[in-house]
Parts: sequence; structure tokens; C-alpha cells
Amino acid sequence: MTDHVYRITEIVGTSTESIDTAIRNAIGRATATLRNVDWFEVVSTRGEVADGNVVHFQVTLKVGFRLEE
Amino acid sequence: MTDHVYRITEIVGTSTESIDTAIRNAIGRATATLRNVDWFEVVSTRGEVADGNVVHFQVTLKVGFRLEE
Amino acid sequence: MTDHVYRITEIVGTSTESIDTAIRNAIGRATATLRNVDWFEVVSTRGEVADGNVVHFQVTLKVGFRLEE
Amino acid sequence: MTDHVYRITEIVGTSTESIDTAIRNAIGRATATLRNVDWFEVVSTRGEVADGNVVHFQVTLKVGFRLEE
Amino acid sequence: MTDHVYRITEIVGTSTESIDTAIRNAIGRATATLRNVDWFEVVSTRGEVADGNVVHFQVTLKVGFRLEE
Amino acid sequence: MTDHVYRITEIVGTSTESIDTAIRNAIGRATATLRNVDWFEVVSTRGEVADGNVVHFQVTLKVGFRLEE
Amino acid sequence: MTDHVYRITEIVGTSTESIDTAIRNAIGRATATLRNVDWFEVVSTRGEVADGNVVHFQVTLKVGFRLEE
Amino acid sequence: MTDHVYRITEIVGTSTESIDTAIRNAIGRATATLRNVDWFEVVSTRGEVADGNVVHFQVTLKVGFRLEE
Amino acid sequence: MTDHVYRITEIVGTSTESIDTAIRNAIGRATATLRNVDWFEVVSTRGEVADGNVVHFQVTLKVGFRLEE
Amino acid sequence: MTDHVYRITEIVGTSTESIDTAIRNAIGRATATLRNVDWFEVVSTRGEVADGNVVHFQVTLKVGFRLEE
Amino acid sequence: MTDHVYRITEIVGTSTESIDTAIRNAIGRATATLRNVDWFEVVSTRGEVADGNVVHFQVTLKVGFRLEE
Amino acid sequence: MTDHVYRITEIVGTSTESIDTAIRNAIGRATATLRNVDWFEVVSTRGEVADGNVVHFQVTLKVGFRLEE
Repeated sequence: MTDHVYRITEIVGTSTESIDTAIRNAIGRATATLRNVDWFEVVSTRGEVADGNVVHFQVTLKVGFRLEE
Repeated sequence: MTDHVYRITEIVGTSTESIDTAIRNAIGRATATLRNVDWFEVVSTRGEVADGNVVHFQVTLKVGFRLEE
Repeated sequence: MTDHVYRITEIVGTSTESIDTAIRNAIGRATATLRNVDWFEVVSTRGEVADGNVVHFQVTLKVGFRLEE
Repeated sequence: MTDHVYRITEIVGTSTESIDTAIRNAIGRATATLRNVDWFEVVSTRGEVADGNVVHFQVTLKVGFRLEE
Repeated sequence: MTDHVYRITEIVGTSTESIDTAIRNAIGRATATLRNVDWFEVVSTRGEVADGNVVHFQVTLKVGFRLEE
Repeated sequence: MTDHVYRITEIVGTSTESIDTAIRNAIGRATATLRNVDWFEVVSTRGEVADGNVVHFQVTLKVGFRLEE
Repeated sequence: MTDHVYRITEIVGTSTESIDTAIRNAIGRATATLRNVDWFEVVSTRGEVADGNVVHFQVTLKVGFRLEE
Repeated sequence: MTDHVYRITEIVGTSTESIDTAIRNAIGRATATLRNVDWFEVVSTRGEVADGNVVHFQVTLKVGFRLEE
Repeated sequence: MTDHVYRITEIVGTSTESIDTAIRNAIGRATATLRNVDWFEVVSTRGEVADGNVVHFQVTLKVGFRLEE
Repeated sequence: MTDHVYRITEIVGTSTESIDTAIRNAIGRATATLRNVDWFEVVSTRGEVADGNVVHFQVTLKVGFRLEE
Repeated sequence: MTDHVYRITEIVGTSTESIDTAIRNAIGRATATLRNVDWFEVVSTRGEVADGNVVHFQVTLKVGFRLEE
Repeated sequence: MTDHVYRITEIVGTSTESIDTAIRNAIGRATATLRNVDWFEVVSTRGEVADGNVVHFQVTLKVGFRLEE
């Protein structure tokens, strides 16, 4: 059994719709440039408000990916 | 460039439906009495259970608004 | 007014769909074996990624239930 | 079932006697000006010392109250 | 010297009187069903308010007990 | 010796110059509308960047003031 | 893909030898009574000292196991 | 106005009776050897259990005292 | 309104002079290699001491920048 | 004395053997691609369990390295 | 290479002028009685307010010094 | 049953070999000058890296000892 090493990077996904979409947007963008993305963890959830409405959910994630040997 | 000052107030929105709706309910209520609400941050997410179902999501938010000069 | 005592147990609900469903799955499973479940609190939200998509949301909850006298 | 919204305010009660009295003093003062106070949570417990004795317990509380519709 | 293993369970004691009594109520209830309870640690202190008074102190504890071999 | 009660409010001071000035700006604004402001505590320090420079320091403070009897 | 639910229990392993052994002792004891143990996380590391030596490492773990459907 | 410097030391007071007494015991012992003790802050509250009863409250405090010039 | 994605990187700025300069040094260096740097948050402030003087302030920052589509 | 700037990256080392080896594996892999690695800090220690045994220690580290001017 | 041991002590520096000066005052006082002071870390930043102005910055530091063999 | 009072001091043990040895080095040094050392708790684990290798593990501990009456 090999001893893998992983890296964790921190990204913020945003969405005008929902927290779940903000997460999916962040993962979609991260996997466009990183290989072997395996897991994420939510660090914080914030948002922008304008005219009395939530205009953006902003979800900060730690994203883990396996480094190739 | 003016040096603005903001206040942060803590509110709890609830919803029988979803976390996102609980947040939108809280923001809707906060902006009914506060001007210049700019952003929010989720502090905690809790809920009430009855008869084996989630009957209320309760999301605590910090809400920031700009003080007028 | 009686002085009740409650227990808190920690569970992880998962869902391929959404954070809200992961929470509802966890509560559904917890209430299948525990009586008097009253409330929950989200401890952390994580997820699994495969082929550039979120394949599982994993929500860790503290779940509180009243102990019978 | 209505979706209530609550506000949380932070107060510090003090007492020369005990932690419990400091909490009761804070709640007594808060309910003198706020309606619908429902719950509190202890944030921190500090105190002042003089001549080798505790002269004041200072208990910081988050206090939650329901906003009227 | 044997290497013992302990389990930690989380409980909430309540009392209409005081924080100390809420803790003693929790420990009394825990030791009614668990053997070898050795220690506790306070996790949080909350309370319920009605008509301007504290009607319940609610103290969440981690309770440790030694598992038998 | 009277048992005082204090309130804590959360504000964000900003400054184009320095962290110390952001704090002084926040305290100046808070004391314009609140009486008996006694102390503050720094909660977080953030800032805005543009064209490679810090354009605003943003310091979040808890500010405590004594409630009048 | 099934939506599994997991439970997390907290245990303390001890060892006169090393931190690693304290963890292995805790996992050995947990798996003696729980099925489907999948992962652990270290919560804290403490120890007992006597006559100037470490006589026991005490490692508190969160241990996760899959609930059967 | 002189710029004082303070030191903070950490102590654990115990009591068979109550949390308040454990704090007073700690402060009494600290002021027996330290001059100018000014304030304390509760860090954690733990206790020892035997035969189903709390036999000791153990309160960890940070204690601040002014250094003489 | 586009759903942007941001990355957060962690850097440590140092300065022999002041905390503010350590932050400005970190931002200056970060913006030399990263485009679209928008904000920072202070994570911790440490320093090096020699011969009774502060010889270096070391400020750890989270720095956020927008990823290009 | 020059004002250096450092970057911090987060990695997870794994080992079938021990926590120390998991750390050394992470540092070995990090220094294969990064120059001037100076220090690390343990963020969390987790592990995978199979058939009642620890099959992998997983240690998350923050790793600091000096940026070249 | 010798295995050094360090002690960490907690002190609070104050200044009527600035956060940086409060830190330098604390380090100046600490090095007057302790040898081999090597580093510090800011724990919290508070202050006293009077007549609408900051009259004292109070910075709590952990200060590390090498113990002699 | 006497109400003991304990003090807690913070020390950093280092070792070129392992985390366990760094802890034992810290305890060995602490007990050379302090009587009645009873327990420790790990606060953080850091290390120094040179030429791609861990050259020092640095473990920060809280160490508790009973004060004599």
C-alpha cells in the first residue's frame, strides 16, 4: 500500500442561486486545472446583499487533491 | 476615498424548507428595518426535529450594514 | 417543571443531491433508532469529488434527544 | 407554521455574589427593554479581583429574542 | 500498569435553580446507566428565559467513563 | 457596589492609512451615538487590495458600553 | 450509489509507550464492539506524569463507523 | 498616564462544593504569592466523579496581575 | 451577473518596522506574481526578539484573488 | 536585515507506520518541488481503519517556505 | 544538535499610542527579567475608551524564551 | 478531602528524533525545576526543516503541577 501525499488548496465559489451551486461552481473550476481532486470541506459561508436580497452566496472550501508520484 | 464604518448585527432566520430559505428569510427581515445591508456570514446552522422530521432549519447570521455619516 | 436530561450523539448524513438532503437523511436514520429526538446542529460539511463533480455531500451533525426518566 | 426571525444581542451581567446571579442580572436588565427574550448562551466568564478577593463576576451572554412580524 | 480505554458521551443537564445543579442532575442521570464514570468537562452553558426570568439552565457536558476489559 | 450591566456591539472601522486609525475611526463613530463606551476588543483584521496596494484596512471590533440603570 | 449514514463516537486510548500505541489501543478496543469502523480523528493528546516521567499518553479520538441499513 | 505591563498565569482551583468556590479558592491561593492581581478569566470547567456524584469541580483560570515598574 | 471563483493563498510578510508594513510587504510581494488580488485577512501576528528588542514583525495573511474564466 | 516574505501551503502526508513517518513523507514530497522549505505545523491528525487496525495515519500540515526576491 | 527546551509566558503590554508600541513595551519589560527571549505571538488586542477616544491599547502576547541547560 | 490548587505552565520540547521524545524532553526539563508535576496537554506540534528533512520536532505543552499548601 503506497503512502500518498495530498495537497489542500482554498477556493471560494459563488452563486446567485444557492449554497450547493456555489460549492459545485468552486469544484467545477478547481477540477478544470487540478488533477485527482478527491474531497472538499466547507470553511465558511458568506454572502452579498443588495436591495434587500441575497445577490451572491460565497462559500469558502478547502479542496484536497492527490499529488502524483 | 471615505473611511466608512459598519455595524454587525446577529440574527437567526428559520425555515421549514431549506437552509437557503432560512438565510433569505433572515435577510428579508433585517432589511425591512436596517438600511445599507451589505453582507452576511453564517455563524451556525441548527434545526428542530419532530416525529422524525426536520421541522425548522435555524441559521444564525452576522449581518453587516454601513452606518450613514 | 421537571429537570430533563438530554443526550447528544454525532452522526454523518450523506447525499448525492444536496446539503439539506444529507441532513434529512441523517435525521431520518437517527430517529429510526432513537426516541425523542429534538434538535440538531451542523458541525461540519464535507464532500467527495470524482471526475470533477461533487458525488457526495457529507454533513456531520450533533443530534440531541431527551432521555426518559 | 410561521418562519420566525430572532435577533441576538450580547450583554455582560455582573454580580458581587455568584456567576448565577450575574446571569440573572443580565437577563433582568435585557428583558426590561426587549420583548420576547427566549434564550441565552454564556460566551465567557471573567471577574475582577481586589485585595485577594473576587469583587465582581462578569458573565458575557448572547441573548436571543423573537422579532415581531 | 494496564492501558485503559475510556469512552466520552455528551449530555445536557437542566435545572431551574443553578448551573451547579444542572451539572449534578446530568451526572446523576448518566451514572444511573453507565458504570465507571470518572470525569466531566463543561462544553457550553445555555438557558431558557420566560417572563423576564431564567427558567432553565442547560449545561452541556462531555462525560468520560472507563470501558471494562 | 452596584452590579452594572454592559452591552457589546460589533462594528467595523476602516482606514486607508493603518490598523490603529481604523480602530480609532470605529471608536469615534460608536461614541457619537452610544454613551458610556468603556472598552473594545479586536475580532478580525481584513483589508481591500487594488493595483497591488492595500487600499483599506478593515478592523472588526466588539465594543462594550455600560447600560444606564 | 447509496446514501450511507455514519455515527461518530469519542474514545480515549492510553499507552505507557507512545502516542501511536495509544491510538492503536483505542481503535483495537472500539472495533471489538463496533462494526464497520472506517476512520478516526485525533481530538487532543494529554498525558500523566509521575516521578518526572511520562507514565501514560492519553489520546482522545473521534471514531467514525457506518450504520447498517 | 503610565503604560503598565501585566503578566497572566494559569491556575486550576478545585472545590467539593461549587464552581464559584473553586474560583475563589484559586484566587485566594494566587493572591497569597502574587501582588497586584487584578482580574481572571475562566478557561475551562471540569470535574471528577465518584460513586455517581461530583466530588470535585476543577476550574482553570487565567489570572492577570500588574508587574511593578 | 457572473459567478466568479476565487483562490486564497497564505503568505507571511515580515518587517523590522511595524505590523502595517509587514502586511504591505506581503501584499506587494503577492501582487508581483498574482493577478486580481482583491482582499486579505490577518491570520496571526508573531515576531522575533533579539537583545531585548522586536527585530521582526511576522504577519500571516490569507490573500484572495479572482481566478480568470 | 532584509524583510523576507514566505508562503504557506497545506499538505497531507500518509503512512501505514506512524504519525512521525507521515510527517516525514509529507515534508519529503513538499521539498521535492518547493525550495527553501523552513518549517511546518501540524493542523490535524486523522487515520483510516480497516479490519480493526489503523491502516493509514493521515497528518495535515501547514508548510512554510521563503519566496525568493 | 542539542534539543533545547523553551518556556512560554503570557504578558499584556499597554500603550496610549499604538498597537506596535504596546508590543514593544511588553517585550521591553519581559526582557528586563527574562534571558534568551526569542519570539512572541499576539493572542488578543483590546483597549480602553474614555471620552470617545482610545486611551490605551492592550496587547496580550505569548513570549517564548530558551531555558538554559 | 482537601481542595488543591494547581498551576499550569507552557513549555516547548524539541527533538531531532520524534514527537514522543520532544514531549519526554519537555517533561524531563520541567520536572528538574518544578515539584508535583501531574499532567500535560499538547497545544501544538511544529517543526523545523532543512535540506528537505525534519531537523527538529517542536511540541508545545501545557504542564500542570500541584501547588503546596
